[in-house]
Amino acid sequence: MHNPAIHRVRPAYALHKCASIFRAHTLLPKILIRRGERSEANHSVVCCKGPNRRLQVGLGRLRLFGLEAKTRLTDASSERLSRQIDFLVLADQLKEVLRQTVLTRTRRQENDAEHSWHLALMSLVLFEHLDDKDVSLLKVMKMLLIHDLVEIFAGDTFCYDVEGVKDQVKRENGAADKVFAILPSDQAKELHALWDEFVEMKTAEARYAAALDRLQPLLLNYNTEGHAWRVHGIKKSQVLQRNKHVEKASKRLWAYAKGLIDNSVAKGYLDDS
Amino acid sequence: MHNPAIHRVRPAYALHKCASIFRAHTLLPKILIRRGERSEANHSVVCCKGPNRRLQVGLGRLRLFGLEAKTRLTDASSERLSRQIDFLVLADQLKEVLRQTVLTRTRRQENDAEHSWHLALMSLVLFEHLDDKDVSLLKVMKMLLIHDLVEIFAGDTFCYDVEGVKDQVKRENGAADKVFAILPSDQAKELHALWDEFVEMKTAEARYAAALDRLQPLLLNYNTEGHAWRVHGIKKSQVLQRNKHVEKASKRLWAYAKGLIDNSVAKGYLDDS
Repeated sequence: MHNPAIHRVRPAYALHKCASIFRAHTLLPKILIRRGERSEANHSVVCCKGPNRRLQVGLGRLRLFGLEAKTRLTDASSERLSRQIDFLVLADQLKEVLRQTVLTRTRRQENDAEHSWHLALMSLVLFEHLDDKDVSLLKVMKMLLIHDLVEIFAGDTFCYDVEGVKDQVKRENGAADKVFAILPSDQAKELHALWDEFVEMKTAEARYAAALDRLQPLLLNYNTEGHAWRVHGIKKSQVLQRNKHVEKASKRLWAYAKGLIDNSVAKGYLDDS
Repeated sequence: MHNPAIHRVRPAYALHKCASIFRAHTLLPKILIRRGERSEANHSVVCCKGPNRRLQVGLGRLRLFGLEAKTRLTDASSERLSRQIDFLVLADQLKEVLRQTVLTRTRRQENDAEHSWHLALMSLVLFEHLDDKDVSLLKVMKMLLIHDLVEIFAGDTFCYDVEGVKDQVKRENGAADKVFAILPSDQAKELHALWDEFVEMKTAEARYAAALDRLQPLLLNYNTEGHAWRVHGIKKSQVLQRNKHVEKASKRLWAYAKGLIDNSVAKGYLDDS
């Protein structure tokens, strides 16, 4: 059953690599070692079985997805690309993480990926309303594109869910370690730091990102007759509390948000208490 | 039935504004004029009924969504913000435009909004593989965030649909005029130009955006056992033809894409002809 196209590596080294890469995943795979024909360096074929697919170890590199049958040698450059592609294929799963807000037309639940897109588009269109003019739009966009990736592992926490919010930080920190570790280490570090900055909400970029993350569901709620508010019995005081972060980025947008909240009460979308 | 909070405008002016703004929409609303109490300037309350909601005209400004009951006067600044919000609320509909590719987990059809998010994330992660190093990532991201907005009006055209592709340019040009015209004119101009640049595929930014727009469905197809290819009986030669644009942005990514295509054939996901 020896497949000459599969890389041969020392089992101990491969196992070490498997373990370090699989720390990035929720389910540790069952690791199998098959000893193939002995080569000069006494390498073995190492295969790992994940929950859904058969995985193979390249030269010290677990190839989650990709071209395992085509490449004989994994150089540093294709190692990088392979990790990046693994990350981007995993990111596809953000499209399956559902939020409480619903879309304006069909009123199906919104998912994290399309929500992230909407925020990034908003950051572009509403940029002129920022109070602080020294803001990098590129940094804001990067932040918004990655801000919810942790929810692939941690799930979406409804912002008014008192119980869920309690351990949200712990759950999401663990998830961030997992998700970004899939990337090459320099990129993992960069994106993890960007996510930390988003969560800490101290820089002008993070404040803008947070403001949009509040304003967008407000727009969707207003344009769906307060759908998520009504389902969960949310009150005006809770919405004001949640959305007050908008003021830290833009007085203009905060005035608009407050008007939308008042209007929601006037129209019966939101309970006035 | 006179509501003093509603702006009063001259009917003729309001109708003119209604018409110009509603050119941005697929369905021309039924326009109703109700003459309220005469004011000094002989203004009237003007209401427009769209397909789904009651709309009102502000001071010469149709307020599709927003704070019509709260503001008495529309100054230039809130006029801008109001148009921006209208655009962002309309953009929500991109989440309902379905593509032919399916997601890696549940295999439901992907929509344009989450696809756009995925491309923007890819532009960030794969940036180092560009052949041309003089590329503005911010411009690429803006381009990717807006590149499919026209499909709110024009619908998604499957890239291998020979009939659909014939009038795609005409349909999408008309849609671009509609969708971007909702924004304040300076932004409308900027984003329309950015979309034109994307379509023309002549600049390094547009070539990168186009490459990612090919590579992403390739990744999804590969990771769903060639789902969309098999449903539509797509062949290797068609996929190579469609994806060759990747080479214009990055030889590295093109080599990777070709490997993925070969591997898809080897695994039986794609017909080798």
